Amino acid sequence: MAVRPDNRPIGVFDSGLGGLTAVKELLTLLPGEDIVYLGDTGRVPYGTRSTETIIKYTEQAFAFLMGQNVKRIIVACGTVSSVALGKAKLPPVPVTGVVDVAAEAAVARTKNGKIGVLGTPATIASGAYEKRIAKLLPSAECFSVACPLFVPLVEAGRFQQGDKVVELVVSEYLEPLQNAGVDTVILGCTHYPLLADVIGAHMGSGVALINPGAEAVQFVASAQKKEGAADRPLGTAKYFVTDSVEGFALSAARFLQRPVAGSVTKIEIERG
Amino acid sequence: MAVRPDNRPIGVFDSGLGGLTAVKELLTLLPGEDIVYLGDTGRVPYGTRSTETIIKYTEQAFAFLMGQNVKRIIVACGTVSSVALGKAKLPPVPVTGVVDVAAEAAVARTKNGKIGVLGTPATIASGAYEKRIAKLLPSAECFSVACPLFVPLVEAGRFQQGDKVVELVVSEYLEPLQNAGVDTVILGCTHYPLLADVIGAHMGSGVALINPGAEAVQFVASAQKKEGAADRPLGTAKYFVTDSVEGFALSAARFLQRPVAGSVTKIEIERG
Repeated sequence: MAVRPDNRPIGVFDSGLGGLTAVKELLTLLPGEDIVYLGDTGRVPYGTRSTETIIKYTEQAFAFLMGQNVKRIIVACGTVSSVALGKAKLPPVPVTGVVDVAAEAAVARTKNGKIGVLGTPATIASGAYEKRIAKLLPSAECFSVACPLFVPLVEAGRFQQGDKVVELVVSEYLEPLQNAGVDTVILGCTHYPLLADVIGAHMGSGVALINPGAEAVQFVASAQKKEGAADRPLGTAKYFVTDSVEGFALSAARFLQRPVAGSVTKIEIERG
Repeated sequence: MAVRPDNRPIGVFDSGLGGLTAVKELLTLLPGEDIVYLGDTGRVPYGTRSTETIIKYTEQAFAFLMGQNVKRIIVACGTVSSVALGKAKLPPVPVTGVVDVAAEAAVARTKNGKIGVLGTPATIASGAYEKRIAKLLPSAECFSVACPLFVPLVEAGRFQQGDKVVELVVSEYLEPLQNAGVDTVILGCTHYPLLADVIGAHMGSGVALINPGAEAVQFVASAQKKEGAADRPLGTAKYFVTDSVEGFALSAARFLQRPVAGSVTKIEIERG
């Protein structure tokens, strides 16, 4: 009854480079897996775009990843997971978005049933986290805040404690969560784990922060026990982006929290 | 020797909706002209993308506008004007970018020869304003600041005096210009005129603020005296965007500073 190994790569799709926070977790938890990362850096950010456009871009991304022979796809992008996964045409391999796994983690963690959700305008407008949480724990109360300035701050390299602008914006966005007394906060966008120190300091140590990318990787690790993991000690990573690769290493290292090891290739995914 | 009227529309290209600050000037200064506006809202912002990608997007936009039979094109986008206009394949009609006209206006205005330039990271990295100013007034000194947080702030509807985040970010970005004692500041991105009140209050009334979109429209008005303007009293406007038109009216009115009058159509310009 041994599960046969499956050495095809795991695909990771994100609107940009933020999804590398999920790759960081993959490299740690499943080091034997090959990874194919697709970051749509030529069209990032998705969080302020329409549903229709996000669905189109997502289907193009799935088509590309299937061409790379992936065995499954992790959608690291909170916006795509919230807005497009119920509507886009799915590929013939398992797709794991971040919403379900993060909602499950938040429900498992909360003690007082009050859960905060931080996300892009598109993610919050979709109500995806709230709907999922309501199904899992009907008594839960969700408090959601759209945080349109978090991605630009992180992209500008500004997420350190003590940065006055960062501290001011974080305190503004978190105020309703603090007033509500939430004990769990979902960091509902790939970029937000980089702000975890500042957010954690504002919320206090009694509040659990949920990193959806890390939850998705844990889910995949668990699923692969039944479906077949790679049987090599160390996999390789291939990174594909839709904008120039110039500057990739610097930005990528910020999200990976380590230097990039793997090939980086610019591709076109617009047709389709 | 009378110049024959030319009733073909004027094309305006921008990466998003910020270029409507130029349309606002066109509607005021040249009300008889038909306008075809193209905002690449499905791929905005350009200011953090590579040169290669910005050139590709610009050529696609020119091809679309030529299909609309425009007699000339105003490139309202500071990033496109700075990064792509010297390199992209130009269409067979006059193209007016914002860099040359704004540099000329700044040189005409400055008394102490110290000019501040605010722009997106791509605009500032290009050095386009500085190079142009150096040609026009070799003794001028330029002080340039990349302002990656201005566009996200304006897009989030935050540009009012008294908004604590806006005031803090503006004071941070303007500090080097104040220390340098500039008497003229180029607002080198379509979004920045919306921050003119806050920027003006920080710089003081003795400092001239240059709005590149308004300068481009004045240049066109002047050129059309020789080339042929429309001979109708009131033109019409057509707006084309690459993302959904949902939410267009609200955002557009912010930049136009009036309600939108004209058709709004979603188009695809990706192939090409």
